[in-house]
Amino acid sequence: MKRYEALAEEIAQSIRTDVLKTGDRLPSVRQAGASRGVSASTVFQAYYLLEARGLIRARERSGYYVMAGAKPHLPELENASRPTAESTPVDVSELVFDILESAKNREVVPFGSAFPSPLLFPFARLARSMAASIQAMDPWSTVDDLTPGHAGLRRQIALRYLADGMHVHPDDIVVTNGALEALNLCLHAVARPGDCVVIESPTFYGALQALEGLGLKAIQVATHPRDGMDLGQLALALERHRPRACWLMTNFQNPLGSLMSDEKKQALVALLAQHEVALIEDDVYGELYFGSRRPLPAKAFDKTGLVMHCSSFSKCLAPGYRVGWAVPGRFRRDVARLKLTSTLSASVPSQAAIADYLSKGGYDRHLRQLRHALSVQQGEMIRAVVKHFPPGTRATRPQGGYFLWIELAQHVDALDIQRIALAQGISVAPGPMFSAERKFRNCLRLNYGHPWDARTEAAMATLGRIISMAG
Amino acid sequence: MKRYEALAEEIAQSIRTDVLKTGDRLPSVRQAGASRGVSASTVFQAYYLLEARGLIRARERSGYYVMAGAKPHLPELENASRPTAESTPVDVSELVFDILESAKNREVVPFGSAFPSPLLFPFARLARSMAASIQAMDPWSTVDDLTPGHAGLRRQIALRYLADGMHVHPDDIVVTNGALEALNLCLHAVARPGDCVVIESPTFYGALQALEGLGLKAIQVATHPRDGMDLGQLALALERHRPRACWLMTNFQNPLGSLMSDEKKQALVALLAQHEVALIEDDVYGELYFGSRRPLPAKAFDKTGLVMHCSSFSKCLAPGYRVGWAVPGRFRRDVARLKLTSTLSASVPSQAAIADYLSKGGYDRHLRQLRHALSVQQGEMIRAVVKHFPPGTRATRPQGGYFLWIELAQHVDALDIQRIALAQGISVAPGPMFSAERKFRNCLRLNYGHPWDARTEAAMATLGRIISMAG
Repeated sequence: MKRYEALAEEIAQSIRTDVLKTGDRLPSVRQAGASRGVSASTVFQAYYLLEARGLIRARERSGYYVMAGAKPHLPELENASRPTAESTPVDVSELVFDILESAKNREVVPFGSAFPSPLLFPFARLARSMAASIQAMDPWSTVDDLTPGHAGLRRQIALRYLADGMHVHPDDIVVTNGALEALNLCLHAVARPGDCVVIESPTFYGALQALEGLGLKAIQVATHPRDGMDLGQLALALERHRPRACWLMTNFQNPLGSLMSDEKKQALVALLAQHEVALIEDDVYGELYFGSRRPLPAKAFDKTGLVMHCSSFSKCLAPGYRVGWAVPGRFRRDVARLKLTSTLSASVPSQAAIADYLSKGGYDRHLRQLRHALSVQQGEMIRAVVKHFPPGTRATRPQGGYFLWIELAQHVDALDIQRIALAQGISVAPGPMFSAERKFRNCLRLNYGHPWDARTEAAMATLGRIISMAG
Repeated sequence: MKRYEALAEEIAQSIRTDVLKTGDRLPSVRQAGASRGVSASTVFQAYYLLEARGLIRARERSGYYVMAGAKPHLPELENASRPTAESTPVDVSELVFDILESAKNREVVPFGSAFPSPLLFPFARLARSMAASIQAMDPWSTVDDLTPGHAGLRRQIALRYLADGMHVHPDDIVVTNGALEALNLCLHAVARPGDCVVIESPTFYGALQALEGLGLKAIQVATHPRDGMDLGQLALALERHRPRACWLMTNFQNPLGSLMSDEKKQALVALLAQHEVALIEDDVYGELYFGSRRPLPAKAFDKTGLVMHCSSFSKCLAPGYRVGWAVPGRFRRDVARLKLTSTLSASVPSQAAIADYLSKGGYDRHLRQLRHALSVQQGEMIRAVVKHFPPGTRATRPQGGYFLWIELAQHVDALDIQRIALAQGISVAPGPMFSAERKFRNCLRLNYGHPWDARTEAAMATLGRIISMAG
């Protein structure tokens, strides 16, 4: 632990134990530095981190204060799900489409949205990269940069892996139309209609729709809100159902926000390798961590080429550009061929613009700002849940991403809440969207990816009233 | 027939009947105008059209001359194919991939390529549209312009239909990652694994791969090199196999170049409607006509919403941008939903750039230049086939597009030719790529979409020698 992290932890402890109370002013940077014998910059970093965690907040020209939600009386969700042990045909699309469609209106408060606010991305800098790269574009690149993709972009992606200590060769990468296509192609490469595939419970609805589209059966495995899929139950499912693949998110799972430890990732990869089952790893939120370093993907522990790792720039840099990628290990050739026969290639100008942006630097600075914004917004949302939602509400405490998973009282119906809230201009993502059997009836996924403002606060108050009346 | 078309036809007749011989100089524009009582501009248009058809050629400062290939001693391919009447599982991908991969090298003469030369497209003007639209981009468009697609682009596409007398509403259109995705989504929307689908024989290999990917069976129906699929045989296939869909190209079919008349299109649509079978219409070459007006798609005759019409900008404006679209009729909702679950959306910057380009005018001028270039190149290739290929060679005479389909002597093996030619730096597309059963062993598809030069001419001579030696 670095010095500023230790200091931050010490202050957080003071808040948890009520030594520091809501509204208390923290010592000035100079005072704190002098009293603990650390530099001003260490104190700054510690305060910055506490702000990112939503524990303290700066007021202009008057220093830092302990936030109202800093010690929220919001019980953490601590139980893993208990899905059926049977395989299940999937039929969730109608529900998902209806809900996504209804939330599309820009006037609606986007707690149900799948995206962070587009205002959090560096559009002007990306536009400059697009203008520069398109004007320099060699017409032959429209042939050369088709699948497996723009060589410069694949090199930049490989360099980012290298910075995290992973050795991924540019030729291991297949550029796709976003991570969603990467995931679909990986699934298509390993599973045939009627096959079983292991998924999380709850799971990203895109996985349910992909299974549905290919006529596959879902094996739902219990997933813990803190550290993800239960490996004991996964082992049983592997024995019992002989699935073709396991599709999951190791980092900041959607919707739970769970994060697997390195040790657990390693055990997961080893277990699947033992059964010769492919792992389709969706790592689109990996860059959105609130801690001190990027959590590794399971791919980092892959020795047999069975891990098909998928990610994209849509959630952290360039939404709408539709550029993602797969590192499909031993299935690289199959994935590239499926890509060639389904959509041929990702947009060449989009690929070139992102390659240009990455090569010029500034991505890490943007990511730091984005992570800070998201973690502050998480703090606001937890505070608002405590303030406005009825007692008995429980929530996750994700260490990254932009989703909070809320468990309401047992008898509250999230589909009712969704309909009533929408009529009042607020979208939410009800739990049944995330389950092959439409379970999690009393759960909601709330998006905190949008800058907090009076409208958001009012919407949380309204949502709290709706839930209280339903309870 | 317009006045200049009549004049052009009269001169073409003189060439066919040897009144005008190879190398003869045509009367000057002034002379011809005076002697026939027409304006100079009419004569210019007629000469321009004859040049486009490859019959005459301008020499700088000395007027027009009858070209060597103007009356080629190249028998036209006149027989429809005779595919098996059975349904066939499809397994052609390995062959197609090997051949496409081998032709990717830019040093190889691209007769086997699927694309026209990228140098024929207005990259600089598109780049200006991209730079202008990306700098003006509203960050919220990254949400708003997801499927069904950029509203301005859908409006521009609808306006082009209107110019051709077709009423397609912007809301009828789903923007896709190129026509290939549009076709795949349409097929996925109507067919389930094990179903039968009618295709042409020979057919675009992309159709074969799409069927293979979805586990569908192919019913191959005889297709004539001049006017496309045999409707009598289609009627029999509909009775016998009860297919879920019919996938074909009405305009300048790949690989034959065949063009259905309006009457035939109308009959096709009526026949399929009678059997309640969806038509998946691939119209990517419709804008590349050499005649006086754009041939209508079958969609123009659709009264029941069963025609799923697909096209793109990849072959006529913006290769590499990966922007195509579907007009799926009554299946619009299904196609949009499949798009949402597979790749979410086409690239937003690509869509906005093309919308900007179309709104500023100049597309029709570009298309006229492109068509002229392609038709001149067709003339060159026909001339080169006559000059270099052995007697007994037959070829199609497409009225648009950029492919020539060549039938060699019965015992020549196109796969051998492909291998030997590639070793000499020349790619060709052998007939078996275009058939579920790898038929058309003695056929080749040659691409004339690249400006003719000494290298191309030498490659045709080499190819002719290879074929002669194989014969």
